[in-house]
Amino acid sequence: MMLFLEFAYIGSAYHGFQVQKGLPTVCQTLQDAMQNVLGSRPDVKGCSRTDAGVHARMYCLSFFSDTAIPSQKLPLALNAHLPKDIRAVRAVPVADDFHARYSALGKEYSYVIRTSHYDDPFLQGQYYRTSLSLDAQAMNSAAALFVGRQDFAAFMAAGSSVQSTVRTVTKAQVSQSGAWVTFTVAADGFLYNMVRIMAGTLLEVGKGGMSEQQLQDAIQSKQRQQAGQTLPACGLFLNKVFYSGVHEAYLP
Amino acid sequence: MMLFLEFAYIGSAYHGFQVQKGLPTVCQTLQDAMQNVLGSRPDVKGCSRTDAGVHARMYCLSFFSDTAIPSQKLPLALNAHLPKDIRAVRAVPVADDFHARYSALGKEYSYVIRTSHYDDPFLQGQYYRTSLSLDAQAMNSAAALFVGRQDFAAFMAAGSSVQSTVRTVTKAQVSQSGAWVTFTVAADGFLYNMVRIMAGTLLEVGKGGMSEQQLQDAIQSKQRQQAGQTLPACGLFLNKVFYSGVHEAYLP
Repeated sequence: MMLFLEFAYIGSAYHGFQVQKGLPTVCQTLQDAMQNVLGSRPDVKGCSRTDAGVHARMYCLSFFSDTAIPSQKLPLALNAHLPKDIRAVRAVPVADDFHARYSALGKEYSYVIRTSHYDDPFLQGQYYRTSLSLDAQAMNSAAALFVGRQDFAAFMAAGSSVQSTVRTVTKAQVSQSGAWVTFTVAADGFLYNMVRIMAGTLLEVGKGGMSEQQLQDAIQSKQRQQAGQTLPACGLFLNKVFYSGVHEAYLP
Repeated sequence: MMLFLEFAYIGSAYHGFQVQKGLPTVCQTLQDAMQNVLGSRPDVKGCSRTDAGVHARMYCLSFFSDTAIPSQKLPLALNAHLPKDIRAVRAVPVADDFHARYSALGKEYSYVIRTSHYDDPFLQGQYYRTSLSLDAQAMNSAAALFVGRQDFAAFMAAGSSVQSTVRTVTKAQVSQSGAWVTFTVAADGFLYNMVRIMAGTLLEVGKGGMSEQQLQDAIQSKQRQQAGQTLPACGLFLNKVFYSGVHEAYLP
């Protein structure tokens, strides 16, 4: 039976999702818990290769299992064996050809910036902090330029190889609440470091160092050096993954 | 010069604010940082004796110091010596007769409940969790009964001694956002465990085990056993302390 598992994690203690020899990873930690609960170590397909330090409010994976445990009881069983920074949320049976990565229709990420002279003790490691104040309205207005089917080559880490750098962004917004400035972006797919480079570029806009026209020019240049810096992983959250035919929670 | 210091902390690792021999406390940790920054260990007056495990979004203290460091630079200097779960926010000079506890006009607390089958990895130790769903509207309606100048003897830990159990509650509200149910209460003063017992009583209302009339009867009974259980410290936050003549941030 093919199973779909949703979980949330704070990535600070992990070297990303993908198993890496000798380093703690989210995937390996989950497989350890699965081995305890299922009695075997399934091969799992993750929805995305999230980087070291990136967090996920909703990470999805698929795996085949012949367990007799009802799927709705799996999260509780797994949580008894998982560290507190990883929590299983939901498990549902899916079609045999379901693949957490290839079946995904798109994803939504948030990049969280704290504008303050001091850190927030309650959300340690869960944002990027700047002492500068930012013009969130200007950032939101500029973010709208990301929406649409465009070539995002300027927003991909230098040296990455990929067949096409064209992606369709369906949502790109910046909101502000007190000291918090949050950039939220949804697309059918993302290039390597795309959200962190977009956030770094919008940070320039928020500081007053880049105009909307310059952001538009940066997109059209397709040159990495025309865009802003890559902001640190700690501010990045995988928010949602979109699927059809799994559960209403995953519809775009 | 009398100084006023505001800071925020997550209380999970501390045995409350007050110094206790052989146990880590917030006060002792702050005084250690002050000793490093100021060169002496000031006697500090805290705004409240928060219990072990309770958090503070705004905790205030006053102390006398002849430091030459400008007050606005103190928070940054202290933060360099404080652990990440305590952050200094603001320091301002105040009148010589200012006392963080006795000058306070009132305080606001929140008690945070998570209604879910699983914990939130992002806010570990910062809420009380129940797997039951709660009727937050009924809780909010019942919370209004706390407002006013009343005898809150039923909402004080058994065995506490105090001159008067009469307090004036100026705000008592329950709000819901997704899995989160938050009780917020402001008063001119609080009895020992008052907010945690109020929250435990509202929890009964939210579960359907207590009516508004029963809550009203519990208040009027002045008997501890008529109120609900004392909920754990981990869900309790000191939100605000009200003063006049310090800074606009502290006005009621």
